[in-house]
Amino acid sequence: MSKVIVIGAGLAGSLLAINLAKRGMSVDVYESRGDMRLEGVAAGRSINLALSDRGIAALREVGMDEYMLAEAVPMTGRMIHSISGETKLLPYSGREGEYINSVSRGGLNIALINEAERYPNVKFHFNERCVDLDCKTGEARFSTGKSVTGDTVIATDGAGSAVRQAMMNGGVERFDYSQSWLEAGYKELHIPPADGGGFLLEKNALHIWPRHQFMMIALPNFDGSFTCTLFLAHKSSPSSEGAVDGASADGRVLSSEASFDALVDEAAVTDFFNREFPDAVPLMPTLIDDFFANPTGNLGTIKCFPWNAGGRALLLGDSAHAVVPFYGQGMNCSFEDVRVLNSLLPEPGARATGSKFDWERVFVEYGQLRKINTDAIADMAEENFYEMRDAVADPVFVRKRELETKLEQTYPDYFSKYSMVTFREDLPYSVAKEKGNVQDKLLMDICSRVSSVAELDMDAVYRSVLEIK
Amino acid sequence: MSKVIVIGAGLAGSLLAINLAKRGMSVDVYESRGDMRLEGVAAGRSINLALSDRGIAALREVGMDEYMLAEAVPMTGRMIHSISGETKLLPYSGREGEYINSVSRGGLNIALINEAERYPNVKFHFNERCVDLDCKTGEARFSTGKSVTGDTVIATDGAGSAVRQAMMNGGVERFDYSQSWLEAGYKELHIPPADGGGFLLEKNALHIWPRHQFMMIALPNFDGSFTCTLFLAHKSSPSSEGAVDGASADGRVLSSEASFDALVDEAAVTDFFNREFPDAVPLMPTLIDDFFANPTGNLGTIKCFPWNAGGRALLLGDSAHAVVPFYGQGMNCSFEDVRVLNSLLPEPGARATGSKFDWERVFVEYGQLRKINTDAIADMAEENFYEMRDAVADPVFVRKRELETKLEQTYPDYFSKYSMVTFREDLPYSVAKEKGNVQDKLLMDICSRVSSVAELDMDAVYRSVLEIK
Repeated sequence: MSKVIVIGAGLAGSLLAINLAKRGMSVDVYESRGDMRLEGVAAGRSINLALSDRGIAALREVGMDEYMLAEAVPMTGRMIHSISGETKLLPYSGREGEYINSVSRGGLNIALINEAERYPNVKFHFNERCVDLDCKTGEARFSTGKSVTGDTVIATDGAGSAVRQAMMNGGVERFDYSQSWLEAGYKELHIPPADGGGFLLEKNALHIWPRHQFMMIALPNFDGSFTCTLFLAHKSSPSSEGAVDGASADGRVLSSEASFDALVDEAAVTDFFNREFPDAVPLMPTLIDDFFANPTGNLGTIKCFPWNAGGRALLLGDSAHAVVPFYGQGMNCSFEDVRVLNSLLPEPGARATGSKFDWERVFVEYGQLRKINTDAIADMAEENFYEMRDAVADPVFVRKRELETKLEQTYPDYFSKYSMVTFREDLPYSVAKEKGNVQDKLLMDICSRVSSVAELDMDAVYRSVLEIK
Repeated sequence: MSKVIVIGAGLAGSLLAINLAKRGMSVDVYESRGDMRLEGVAAGRSINLALSDRGIAALREVGMDEYMLAEAVPMTGRMIHSISGETKLLPYSGREGEYINSVSRGGLNIALINEAERYPNVKFHFNERCVDLDCKTGEARFSTGKSVTGDTVIATDGAGSAVRQAMMNGGVERFDYSQSWLEAGYKELHIPPADGGGFLLEKNALHIWPRHQFMMIALPNFDGSFTCTLFLAHKSSPSSEGAVDGASADGRVLSSEASFDALVDEAAVTDFFNREFPDAVPLMPTLIDDFFANPTGNLGTIKCFPWNAGGRALLLGDSAHAVVPFYGQGMNCSFEDVRVLNSLLPEPGARATGSKFDWERVFVEYGQLRKINTDAIADMAEENFYEMRDAVADPVFVRKRELETKLEQTYPDYFSKYSMVTFREDLPYSVAKEKGNVQDKLLMDICSRVSSVAELDMDAVYRSVLEIK
């Protein structure tokens, strides 16, 4: 029986543990934090997440999809809030049944841990922070002084992975690595449920307040509340194009130079929110407290390769490819990682061959299959930041989304880039990116030449899309 | 008097020390190795380097240019060696006086250290390996247990910089970083002087044996010898396009799967060199010994930003931007770094203002000026690997180089991309890259449509080049 050490009991690690257990492997999961079932979840960091088809497909493999969707809130499109408080829904798809799902990170993680613990061959070890890995022997070392060795180590210890650090510090020769940060950071805020229950904003939408240099979004929670996230530059950049308005004589934070650094006190925050998000402020009674209590997070992309140290260790999920959250694919991509790795492992119930399992061969093949796709979603996620912040407020872009909705309603085989990424778990991210980019350019071109989608000959547009490739 | 700590007494650090000393600053240089004037230089790693106009301009600022060029060997072009032993010179420029210079790394470094030591306000500390920097206080710590603090620290401690590591490990928030490695490695080899002195190959050329998947180069040394470098894949990749030849039944290393890993014994090395570099082998009596005695090096590109930790520390040279050697610009770029930093410092002899010098302002401005250009040369250096390995053996490329030589001979204001990078210290790397790429594409197009440069109307070609921008 293969003995696998999993580092990290987050979403990817817990789902992975279930899959390894189903294959009869002995699985030890080491988690740096305490047991979240006893201790609760840290506040202020992505309380809810958008679960979509790639993630659902991976949950389906372990029979957890319907269970998780039962407590999810469907989001059928982006609800755009203008500065004057007008709203407009841009559907994610023109088809029935194509929507994304707001789920609780904590709820999902706990469900996966509970499911994994049903297997007698899985054991969780909490409060064990991995600090190093010997890439030659596969020995994992923990801050408690403990150290363990299995047949292999799979690291799902997230963007700050200690195992990846060990690979980089000489464990893997010629280790390609990059980390890059957006100038924007994020802060989570809160809209409570209505008095007596229910939602204060449209329930079945992902709300966006796009303001060019920054934006706020809100995702519904099952209890009627919304979790808002403000994405804003860390520092003012007075030389940026937006700064032509000049500085304010009375010290107010102008939109053109808005930044977390400039929002230093209650007056500045109140003024900024009243001006930029006037329709949201009345729904946020704890705005000031939340703003100063919750941390300001960084938004980074991490890429690296190779992901394996021989057959001794593999990076999976955020430890291998942290992405920014703007395509709602971080968790879905990590779950798909697990699904791709599964496809290279023996079927559950397959008879043990007696010979040692060749982890290195599996890890190399996994990397070859997967790297091109995680690179693609990382790039698309960065690009989508600019789309959400800027483009959703651009009339040509809005027309293009209308056109895509119409195309999806009319032609069953038409899929926008967003739909290919989000609703086509059968299509690799790299294909969605390449085809989607060509399609986007064509449709933006078409929409820039008309003032309304109604002017367009839909059949002609559809035929021109078919001509792509 | 500003007190500056320089980490690293290599080429960049020594030249920087001279410049800071001229400005009346107190300079302490800490070097991890012993004093190379007493201990000699490590063998097997870039014994000679190509000094060109950007580097010369920086040496001129400290009056060291003529002194260094006196012991340099001019190289007027690339001498291409075909597999049958034919040679063809592709000049670096069509103009007189535009050539590059093979200089001894050790000789140049020693000359710079000696020059720096002439200033009473410079002190070198050898065998002091910096292991960490406190980015808040500017305290540099050494493996000897020593620690020092100055007004600022300038890190010229190379590609493996400990100061950069400290910035990355939390010293600088949102530190962008990337390291990427070529599949090829390198090994230095040796051609001795002729019996009784003189050169066994054309003296005034950089010799290249381009073989598509790999190449060897040779640079002349002042003593009549040549230092050869073999650039070759670390590992065989049997699935690569070149592998259609199939595997050899008798175990010989086929060219299509040549790699350092496959050259395991004397027979394999001899066979490989006899087949690929038959004209060079008779000139390399110590080939086998050198091959197995000298290390196989890695070829990596490192980028990062920001380069400064407030006013406490600055990365300069390879510590900020390690590049692959294929444009011959690593040292020249680092020397230009020093020159750009100089331009932001008070003139030598300027009266001290009494107020503290604002290092942070200088460092930020330096980064803004310089980053775009070091990124450009890093990218061009990677691209030039493929040009040297593949393109110099391609007939269209050879015609294009002939055309460029003719253009440079005919039109004084025509400069090839190579010439802009190498001979135009007045032109930023980023401009050379952008303009050079457009120009390259145009000229390759033109040369692909003719079988000889003689067919071309030079005036028409020149006018089409002028139309670029």
